[in-house]
Amino acid sequence: MSRKQRPTRRALYRQRSEKSGLPPGSLVYVGDRGGSSVRMTLLDYSDTGYTERLIAAPDECAPFRQSQSITWINVDGLSVPKTLEGLGGAMGFHNLVLEDILNTEQRPKFEDYGDYVFVVAKMLEFNTDAGHVKPEHLALVLGRNFLVSFQEVAGDPFEPVRARIRTGAGKTRKLGADYLLYSLLDVTVDQYFVVLDRLGERIEQLDQLILSSESPRIMGEMHALKREILFLRKNVVPLREVVNTLRHSDSALIDEATRPFLRDLHDHIVQVVDRIETYRDLLSSMLDLYLSSVSNRTNTVLKIVAVFSSVFLPLTFMTGIFGMNFEFMPLLHSPKGFVVIVTSMVAIVVVMLAIFRWRRWI
Amino acid sequence: MSRKQRPTRRALYRQRSEKSGLPPGSLVYVGDRGGSSVRMTLLDYSDTGYTERLIAAPDECAPFRQSQSITWINVDGLSVPKTLEGLGGAMGFHNLVLEDILNTEQRPKFEDYGDYVFVVAKMLEFNTDAGHVKPEHLALVLGRNFLVSFQEVAGDPFEPVRARIRTGAGKTRKLGADYLLYSLLDVTVDQYFVVLDRLGERIEQLDQLILSSESPRIMGEMHALKREILFLRKNVVPLREVVNTLRHSDSALIDEATRPFLRDLHDHIVQVVDRIETYRDLLSSMLDLYLSSVSNRTNTVLKIVAVFSSVFLPLTFMTGIFGMNFEFMPLLHSPKGFVVIVTSMVAIVVVMLAIFRWRRWI
Amino acid sequence: MSRKQRPTRRALYRQRSEKSGLPPGSLVYVGDRGGSSVRMTLLDYSDTGYTERLIAAPDECAPFRQSQSITWINVDGLSVPKTLEGLGGAMGFHNLVLEDILNTEQRPKFEDYGDYVFVVAKMLEFNTDAGHVKPEHLALVLGRNFLVSFQEVAGDPFEPVRARIRTGAGKTRKLGADYLLYSLLDVTVDQYFVVLDRLGERIEQLDQLILSSESPRIMGEMHALKREILFLRKNVVPLREVVNTLRHSDSALIDEATRPFLRDLHDHIVQVVDRIETYRDLLSSMLDLYLSSVSNRTNTVLKIVAVFSSVFLPLTFMTGIFGMNFEFMPLLHSPKGFVVIVTSMVAIVVVMLAIFRWRRWI
Amino acid sequence: MSRKQRPTRRALYRQRSEKSGLPPGSLVYVGDRGGSSVRMTLLDYSDTGYTERLIAAPDECAPFRQSQSITWINVDGLSVPKTLEGLGGAMGFHNLVLEDILNTEQRPKFEDYGDYVFVVAKMLEFNTDAGHVKPEHLALVLGRNFLVSFQEVAGDPFEPVRARIRTGAGKTRKLGADYLLYSLLDVTVDQYFVVLDRLGERIEQLDQLILSSESPRIMGEMHALKREILFLRKNVVPLREVVNTLRHSDSALIDEATRPFLRDLHDHIVQVVDRIETYRDLLSSMLDLYLSSVSNRTNTVLKIVAVFSSVFLPLTFMTGIFGMNFEFMPLLHSPKGFVVIVTSMVAIVVVMLAIFRWRRWI
Amino acid sequence: MSRKQRPTRRALYRQRSEKSGLPPGSLVYVGDRGGSSVRMTLLDYSDTGYTERLIAAPDECAPFRQSQSITWINVDGLSVPKTLEGLGGAMGFHNLVLEDILNTEQRPKFEDYGDYVFVVAKMLEFNTDAGHVKPEHLALVLGRNFLVSFQEVAGDPFEPVRARIRTGAGKTRKLGADYLLYSLLDVTVDQYFVVLDRLGERIEQLDQLILSSESPRIMGEMHALKREILFLRKNVVPLREVVNTLRHSDSALIDEATRPFLRDLHDHIVQVVDRIETYRDLLSSMLDLYLSSVSNRTNTVLKIVAVFSSVFLPLTFMTGIFGMNFEFMPLLHSPKGFVVIVTSMVAIVVVMLAIFRWRRWI
Repeated sequence: MSRKQRPTRRALYRQRSEKSGLPPGSLVYVGDRGGSSVRMTLLDYSDTGYTERLIAAPDECAPFRQSQSITWINVDGLSVPKTLEGLGGAMGFHNLVLEDILNTEQRPKFEDYGDYVFVVAKMLEFNTDAGHVKPEHLALVLGRNFLVSFQEVAGDPFEPVRARIRTGAGKTRKLGADYLLYSLLDVTVDQYFVVLDRLGERIEQLDQLILSSESPRIMGEMHALKREILFLRKNVVPLREVVNTLRHSDSALIDEATRPFLRDLHDHIVQVVDRIETYRDLLSSMLDLYLSSVSNRTNTVLKIVAVFSSVFLPLTFMTGIFGMNFEFMPLLHSPKGFVVIVTSMVAIVVVMLAIFRWRRWI
Repeated sequence: MSRKQRPTRRALYRQRSEKSGLPPGSLVYVGDRGGSSVRMTLLDYSDTGYTERLIAAPDECAPFRQSQSITWINVDGLSVPKTLEGLGGAMGFHNLVLEDILNTEQRPKFEDYGDYVFVVAKMLEFNTDAGHVKPEHLALVLGRNFLVSFQEVAGDPFEPVRARIRTGAGKTRKLGADYLLYSLLDVTVDQYFVVLDRLGERIEQLDQLILSSESPRIMGEMHALKREILFLRKNVVPLREVVNTLRHSDSALIDEATRPFLRDLHDHIVQVVDRIETYRDLLSSMLDLYLSSVSNRTNTVLKIVAVFSSVFLPLTFMTGIFGMNFEFMPLLHSPKGFVVIVTSMVAIVVVMLAIFRWRRWI
Repeated sequence: MSRKQRPTRRALYRQRSEKSGLPPGSLVYVGDRGGSSVRMTLLDYSDTGYTERLIAAPDECAPFRQSQSITWINVDGLSVPKTLEGLGGAMGFHNLVLEDILNTEQRPKFEDYGDYVFVVAKMLEFNTDAGHVKPEHLALVLGRNFLVSFQEVAGDPFEPVRARIRTGAGKTRKLGADYLLYSLLDVTVDQYFVVLDRLGERIEQLDQLILSSESPRIMGEMHALKREILFLRKNVVPLREVVNTLRHSDSALIDEATRPFLRDLHDHIVQVVDRIETYRDLLSSMLDLYLSSVSNRTNTVLKIVAVFSSVFLPLTFMTGIFGMNFEFMPLLHSPKGFVVIVTSMVAIVVVMLAIFRWRRWI
Repeated sequence: MSRKQRPTRRALYRQRSEKSGLPPGSLVYVGDRGGSSVRMTLLDYSDTGYTERLIAAPDECAPFRQSQSITWINVDGLSVPKTLEGLGGAMGFHNLVLEDILNTEQRPKFEDYGDYVFVVAKMLEFNTDAGHVKPEHLALVLGRNFLVSFQEVAGDPFEPVRARIRTGAGKTRKLGADYLLYSLLDVTVDQYFVVLDRLGERIEQLDQLILSSESPRIMGEMHALKREILFLRKNVVPLREVVNTLRHSDSALIDEATRPFLRDLHDHIVQVVDRIETYRDLLSSMLDLYLSSVSNRTNTVLKIVAVFSSVFLPLTFMTGIFGMNFEFMPLLHSPKGFVVIVTSMVAIVVVMLAIFRWRRWI
Repeated sequence: MSRKQRPTRRALYRQRSEKSGLPPGSLVYVGDRGGSSVRMTLLDYSDTGYTERLIAAPDECAPFRQSQSITWINVDGLSVPKTLEGLGGAMGFHNLVLEDILNTEQRPKFEDYGDYVFVVAKMLEFNTDAGHVKPEHLALVLGRNFLVSFQEVAGDPFEPVRARIRTGAGKTRKLGADYLLYSLLDVTVDQYFVVLDRLGERIEQLDQLILSSESPRIMGEMHALKREILFLRKNVVPLREVVNTLRHSDSALIDEATRPFLRDLHDHIVQVVDRIETYRDLLSSMLDLYLSSVSNRTNTVLKIVAVFSSVFLPLTFMTGIFGMNFEFMPLLHSPKGFVVIVTSMVAIVVVMLAIFRWRRWI
């Protein structure tokens, strides 16, 4: 638990080996974000009103486990396992759930523990400066009348949902905690489209560069985009299965009225996956195009060499002939000698170029 | 809702991120086609006759929801969410249905809402000038005795169906709204074959160009065709699943008599998908052919360089020898010197070319 | 119906767009083979004997629909929809069946209509002159005691079956119409093996050419073979599914005694598909071999250029040195000058070639 | 039946078209091995003892069909259909079984005929001289208390099984004919590992050659190995399905006690298939490595050309300058002229090479 | 049994053919590790305490088969089949189980023998010196109250588990032998992450080298990494299936309380497989990048050749012209001749380079 967290440069995967050998259910935060503080907020609402406040100690949450009103507890910061352990105890979570909440490398998953269901997803953001997708771990525990959400750092795309709860707009206040779970996932998936749009723009830009430019940088960018696509796919594809299981789950926690929304959510993720696959195909087609354009340029350059050597090597040879110092050579002393030779040189060039044109070599 | 719609150049995907953060069921038209007007027409028919008229206000539709005659309401233009919301209210559609009707990026899908079923498909047209496939969003809602169809712009391939209703030809007037749904989808899929034929023609033309021409433009066109194939696949493949679900659906809205037709429709889509896959394979084989022909041309050009340098470099060297200004050199002062040297040069060329021919280098 | 049939050059797909917009069940022959005549023959047999005759009018068939003896009606020529419509009416076929009989682009399929089952397959022949596979549409309708077969042109591989019926050899006369259906499909699949053997021979020939020859024609032929393989797969793979469904079908039309034969037939088609896939893999491996042999030849040619330029460029430079017209230069007036220079040139060549040999460049 | 058998060179597939048009169940041996003789041996054993003898006429086998002791009839040679027909009649085999016994192109399969089950497998041997895998057709029919095995030629890997029967070692004599079937298949699959080990050795050897050698022969060998892998896969993969079906079959002929052994056998085949797939992947990675090493060598050779032409072309040009015959030129008559020029040449070379080294071109 | 074990260099597969022909259930150790000794330790524990000791003879284990306390027998060293046979007899294991314990080439598998279940897995370690993954065979037999583990050599990652048993920390002492089985597998899978992290680091390093360096060694390393990935996949992918079967098994040996942990373990393996696949994709994208960078460098080098030959070949030709020995030539005797020619040469160079720059060749 006391192992130090060293910051690592972003990789497709962070170090996971640090946990090796620890007993199952050990609580270790393997991520590298956020300081040492945990911030817990509570948003309790029903059809008629809502209260919102900060939570200082995990024990304050226990009463809300059984309350009739819907309770949303949001936790920002996963770097203090002690606090989370307290919260887990207060809410009655299995140790394996707590372990997965802290394990930011955990892929999206759904687990039904009877009294509550556990969902892991990834919030994604496109970092324009670095040019890559920045992930944030999101763990959600849905109980009868409560939802607990865990994030790595403060700041999330859930403000519109909070606003709807505060104003009472939309259906959020009228429906149960399962609809809240859906709303959070829906907003998360909406973010994926933003990321996809950014990636799509870069792919389109690159696509138009390939034929006009010849910078070897293009290939490096295609490779970088492919990495991002791989990264995205790793984080999104399992979520499709998660939402599908959630939607068809026979858990009593999921109300019938929420299922059409989950179907809609599933549909959105399918679209995200579709686009990811299309981008992959597109990148692979662009790679072919790029490689063929490199080959074509090689051909063009080679032709220059071919034309110059096939025209000037013979000519230079001819000048060499008449530059030899033989005493007895034809033409040298004739007044028309020079003209004759230059004329034949011109003729040779013309014939050579004609042949090349005819054979379509140039 | 009041967000401005900026026209975008056609991309594999339009911007979807604008919707991010809005509550589920928000009505936003994400497409870029059509002006600000909505045109609704109503075609009510039974075995014995038909009436046809324009609809001014959505409320006029409500009575037809329960009528015994079959009612086909067609809506052209999706840019006025207000009107569509009115229509949705009058016909009793779920908010998620209205959202998907407006979302022109929605992939083909089938959803059974009990009282009605909701189908999304894509109308495709081949734009010969631009050389690409132009899609149009098509949403269909089938109720007991009515069908509501939503399109982005006026102008559709459904005229033959309307003609059959007006003249009473075929089975359309004798069978229910489900047969009308089938008819519209059938016409839509028939259009796919037209698009495929156009693409197929271009692929065949390209195939014949590859070996005869050496334009680098060919590669660009292959890439463009691959994009179109990807685009097509994205729009058609999900429809296969849609029709299959529709066909095996236990919804009371689908009559037994219509199922053989749906089976036939499914079969057509399978054929479309088959052809798309074959085109993909063909393009990939053509790419191999093209790349190998580029390599072969590289070889040809290289051989020219090889022949010229291996023939003339030695010869020029020989002329160089006898162009040196040494005082004491053999042959220079012999009357046969020049002839001897030129003869040996010719001999060298002949031997060199013979070796090349023998080693099959030229 | 009156649309003119223009002959098209053979493509992977014929034009299908002509049918676009026609009502479902419209009878249009989309192929390009055969004249305007239809030839119908009837072969009625039982355990004890057989009768064979031409049919002039479709109505003559009606009585055989219910007869106890087995009736095989064969139709050559699909270009007169009227006649086929008559036959369909007399035998009680669904309009969609007639549509698919005429649609020569229809992929293999199986449909159970209760009273009868409908099977579409493709007869394939290898046209040695053109070097490609020639398909012919085959539609089969199996009823209680009858089988109707539809072909595009006269001439088929079914003569051995007819001979067995006439002579009473084998089981054909003892078993029902389902065994006849099996026999026709079996003969059709046997033809596939002939086609595969032809393709296999060409692939083997090409395989042996790749390393010995360097003709760019090889690549074109590989591409052509790949097209044929694609074409074959398109026509054969769906048939596997057809026969599998037929074999496990619970239709009363398929007798238990026929099922082992259908299992055997299924097994044959699986073998055909196996070979097609192996050919694909083989072609793809041959492509790799070819491309690498092109690269190797590029290397060989390049080495010639490298050797000649690295040997003769320095030598020519040396001759250039002593060809300069400076007044004061060493060696020029020494009697041994020429010998010294020529000796050093020879030394340079030897050292250069030794280095090349040592670095394994040549 | 009387068609002549022409010997063919080994191909991925032998000619199968000869059978085209024959009635189903026609007995034709399509292989090319063995003479005109058939050798039948009988090994009858029980827990207490065994008898072994040659069989002259097929009818001798009939009594063993019902005997309590276990009977193993082995048939070497498939070229006399008459004899096999007799044996098939005596043992009560379906005609399709006999057809598949003779059809050496038959892929591995399992068929349950109620009274007996029919299994086809392939014995494989690695022919070190020819460098390829030699297959032999193996057909097995398992009845209540008997097993009939059919092979193309004499000589098989079953001697250890026979030895165990003769000595009574192991479980073979204690268990039924199904255990004998398992034993034969187990020995057959054990042979596959021998073949895989040979192929694996060749792949390893090739893998180490790729980077050190540059022989174009390597590519040819990789292609040959790929052919062998394809060949192996074609023969082994269907057997996996066969054993799996056999193991889960509800046939009364398979005893419960034998099932763990069949599970083990299945596991072995899965390992064979695993290795085949790994070898494929390995070969494909080796191909990439080879092609990239060819490209690298191309680069190396090109650099030689580049260095020599960029160094000597300018130098030769300079000598050309001072080799011109102008009357008025600078330096020519200066005593230091030659030294100045040669010094500048050396300077040019040094600068040029420094630039190249700095730009990392050489 | 007495066959000698020759040490082999590490290959993707070790020789397996040595076992060919032996009766099923023959005990042969096919690995090449460990000496001739077997070391057996026994760890017997319950909620209240534990005893730990060495076992000299296999028979000592028999009493623990039925004891109420949990017994963990660990066997290091598989090279003495006799001892293992004794142990197998004492514990009542099937002969096929013993065979698979010794067969170190056995892929991961799960088999339910009713009284006990048998699990095979692989312990993996990354050998940094050799740069490859080192596998060790691990066989586990779980009975009612006992677990027997078999390893090839002494030294394992199970020390943390032993420590937890000794100290009574965690749940190990409170739960059954199935939880012990889970704990061992969990530690084994944790090791996989360590291996993946090492491989991941090497892949990242290579990825950054590709664009900056041009060493052909990179390709060799990519190939080596691909081999490791293949090796890993072969050992891990079947384990996913094993744990899934274990988790859903209806064996009475697996307690309900252990199932969530098995679900978690399954989830970990899925992540391992995910990363393996991502690494494969990444390597394949890196290969593309590498090949394209090789092509680009070829182009760069070619351009040098092109520029030098197109600039200096014409110039040298011009010097050749005026180096000819014709008696009557223009300019030679003019005082400005030399300046005129040199000026035109400079002009030609400038024009040439301008053209090249304009056509973007250089």
